[in-house]
Amino acid sequence: MSSLAAFDQLFPRHLRLLQDFVALPSVSTDPAFQPDIEKTAEFVAGLCRSAGLTTEVRPTAGHPAVIAHNGYREGLPHLLIYGHYDVQPAEDAPSWKYPPFSPTVDDGYLYGRGSSDNKGQILAHLCALRCLYERDGGLPINVTVLVEGEEEIGSPNLPQLLKELSGERPPFTIAVVSDTSTAVKGRPTVQYSLRGIVTAEFSLTTARREVHSGIFGGTTENAIRAITHLLAKAHDEDYKVAIPGFYDKVQEPMDWEQAELESIPFDEDSYLDWIGATTAAGESGFSTNQRRWFRPTLEFHGIGGGYQDEGSKTSVPPHAFAKLSARLVPDQDPEEIADMMERFFTGNCPPGATIDYRRGHAGPAYLIGRTDEERALLETAKSVLREAFEAEPILARHGGAIPILTPFEQILGVKTLLMGLGLPDDGVHSYDERFSLEQFRKGIRMSALVVERLKTLAPA
Amino acid sequence: MSSLAAFDQLFPRHLRLLQDFVALPSVSTDPAFQPDIEKTAEFVAGLCRSAGLTTEVRPTAGHPAVIAHNGYREGLPHLLIYGHYDVQPAEDAPSWKYPPFSPTVDDGYLYGRGSSDNKGQILAHLCALRCLYERDGGLPINVTVLVEGEEEIGSPNLPQLLKELSGERPPFTIAVVSDTSTAVKGRPTVQYSLRGIVTAEFSLTTARREVHSGIFGGTTENAIRAITHLLAKAHDEDYKVAIPGFYDKVQEPMDWEQAELESIPFDEDSYLDWIGATTAAGESGFSTNQRRWFRPTLEFHGIGGGYQDEGSKTSVPPHAFAKLSARLVPDQDPEEIADMMERFFTGNCPPGATIDYRRGHAGPAYLIGRTDEERALLETAKSVLREAFEAEPILARHGGAIPILTPFEQILGVKTLLMGLGLPDDGVHSYDERFSLEQFRKGIRMSALVVERLKTLAPA
Repeated sequence: MSSLAAFDQLFPRHLRLLQDFVALPSVSTDPAFQPDIEKTAEFVAGLCRSAGLTTEVRPTAGHPAVIAHNGYREGLPHLLIYGHYDVQPAEDAPSWKYPPFSPTVDDGYLYGRGSSDNKGQILAHLCALRCLYERDGGLPINVTVLVEGEEEIGSPNLPQLLKELSGERPPFTIAVVSDTSTAVKGRPTVQYSLRGIVTAEFSLTTARREVHSGIFGGTTENAIRAITHLLAKAHDEDYKVAIPGFYDKVQEPMDWEQAELESIPFDEDSYLDWIGATTAAGESGFSTNQRRWFRPTLEFHGIGGGYQDEGSKTSVPPHAFAKLSARLVPDQDPEEIADMMERFFTGNCPPGATIDYRRGHAGPAYLIGRTDEERALLETAKSVLREAFEAEPILARHGGAIPILTPFEQILGVKTLLMGLGLPDDGVHSYDERFSLEQFRKGIRMSALVVERLKTLAPA
Repeated sequence: MSSLAAFDQLFPRHLRLLQDFVALPSVSTDPAFQPDIEKTAEFVAGLCRSAGLTTEVRPTAGHPAVIAHNGYREGLPHLLIYGHYDVQPAEDAPSWKYPPFSPTVDDGYLYGRGSSDNKGQILAHLCALRCLYERDGGLPINVTVLVEGEEEIGSPNLPQLLKELSGERPPFTIAVVSDTSTAVKGRPTVQYSLRGIVTAEFSLTTARREVHSGIFGGTTENAIRAITHLLAKAHDEDYKVAIPGFYDKVQEPMDWEQAELESIPFDEDSYLDWIGATTAAGESGFSTNQRRWFRPTLEFHGIGGGYQDEGSKTSVPPHAFAKLSARLVPDQDPEEIADMMERFFTGNCPPGATIDYRRGHAGPAYLIGRTDEERALLETAKSVLREAFEAEPILARHGGAIPILTPFEQILGVKTLLMGLGLPDDGVHSYDERFSLEQFRKGIRMSALVVERLKTLAPA
């Protein structure tokens, strides 16, 4: 533990780096932030170089990725560390108490967009590599770092990048990804399953012209009436998704994970209180943790149409739009679900409206732990967490999507350990996103231990 | 007809006045336009003074009104001319081919926000009064002009103003209002009925916080899911309003108006084509003209919630809002309908959401023509139109609302003749609003004839 304690001493330096990183508004979905995306990629490259890694900012058809490694020595395991430097938009600035891109430390947290998702988490790994490099003049194993800039928009160019990497770098032993949060506070978590995702958006048009609702009202379709009727068909009154076939491939939980699920301490009142919801609401017949980890969902993310400003405007709106996504569980096929969704919404479009349906990104769910070998791997990861965090870890599913885990397996042939450093109330994809400084400090210890113990961790 | 022809000669002057009037962006719903509201009231006052009227810009609790009169001589009838100088918003500027507040003459029309609703129409009356004044040195009857600045926001301060007017001015013989459009092009129209209105808006809140739809999705209410389910309940699949009691007081058409309705030439294909709708859609069992003139409706004007910008954002939205209104027909009580609507939407709010419901303005429908006396009055108005427009007039209902007609009757004890100068495709409350220069010219003739024949027109 003495070397871990020495790394702790360097925390002021690590915190300054985190602040500099979060200050860069690397929003990937909005072209207005392109110059910041470039700057952020260069910043990440600098971090890699300071850990002694051979580093490259590699262009893609979209935003550039950072690829770095410490050469390759035969006979040593090869670790892949993956993260992303892009962040969600922060356009709802008035909701933020802390400015999203002027990182602020308060009460043990660093506040700012991207602090937890994913800048703080990937930085913990890069700080650990630098500490090991500074202490030993090198790393005890082969390490490749991959930090992309398109995770929040579905990683459209990552498969191509992985194909390149697969040709350039020797085979990987294991990948470690920290882009999730612990299942509950105070309990470091190995996530063994993620939900997949299918996104889409559509707009309805009911007329070329917005007309007076007195003179013309009641005679032609109203785009808002049409879209509300269409969207309302997608869930029944029990919050079940009403798209035919949606649940067909969903499996029951395995026995061991059912036992883990029941062992996880969970305080639903605190959970709802943090969200600020008065009641749990979701698919009938399931608990909150079942709903978010074991069940697929369909969520609406945006809706708009007609008059948006102050006061009233009595006209019949000719356009309305909706943005939505489905979260998938293992064995649901993203393409099949995307087909079902498109068939459902285009097929149920009211006769007085035309629909312009656009598919978005899609990725399958991820699951590790169906074989004994994979179960053993999960237990070894738990032991690293136990030492780094000095607390008993748990195994849990996670509701989010990291769509690239499947191409990791399919293209690189590597399994991934999800060792998330976020906390459940970090506010990722929300306002006042934050990252716990304690998680940051212990996450650096965790990453150093992973590197030091890789021989133990490596699967057969 | 020679004096009418002389008034026609002054048309270039009248057109310049119309352009100056429409250039003033007197949007009443948005406080940002307050200085323009003041300027427009002064502009209208100037028009009244140039017709020799004693004129006052009178403050109200909201926007000022212009009140003008030519004194009072016993034994002569007393005409009230009403209009409004405020206009609808024109925030959808990109949809406008013609700039909303830089009036443009093209192909026999003047284009601009408010050109038809109501600036061009009230200006026709003010130009006629000025022509008569310039020709004769005065008017042959008693005239009071009232031009308010809050019609588009429900005339909240007009009842108080009418009470003041009722104390200050001798009783009125008849009111003339031109704030509607002809039933069909080429046929001047006396409207004998208007629809009433009840407006409302509400917002739903499902959480204090916007959360990640992966980590938390499917466990608490989604504000967009909630609002679409709530709004979708308000109409059944046959487009009937599903609010209990909504149709209870709706009456069948009278025999004479059913006959008039059937005599009105109506080309539904052209009607739909102008709107740009592919098909008629509305309450089952009724024709398009029945739907807009004889049936109440419920229309949605605006909806919003969650992410509105480019790309995707996978979070669960905690807020959504809707703006809506009901159009009422005679005998429906606005307060009763407002109660029904509030009960319906608050009572059907999903359990995971809280609703903030705000009532807007409300006014009853208007109907003249249930007595023989009123029928005779309508026939006399037709004769004026026949001469001014040199075409056969028709009697028709109108789908819009002019909520102040009821307080005119209740507070001033005066009946109103609706002699609309707009055309059905003027685009009021829409983009590229316009006013026909031919209707403007003939409207000035009409107004002059009304003043000259008031003794014939006056009810017993």
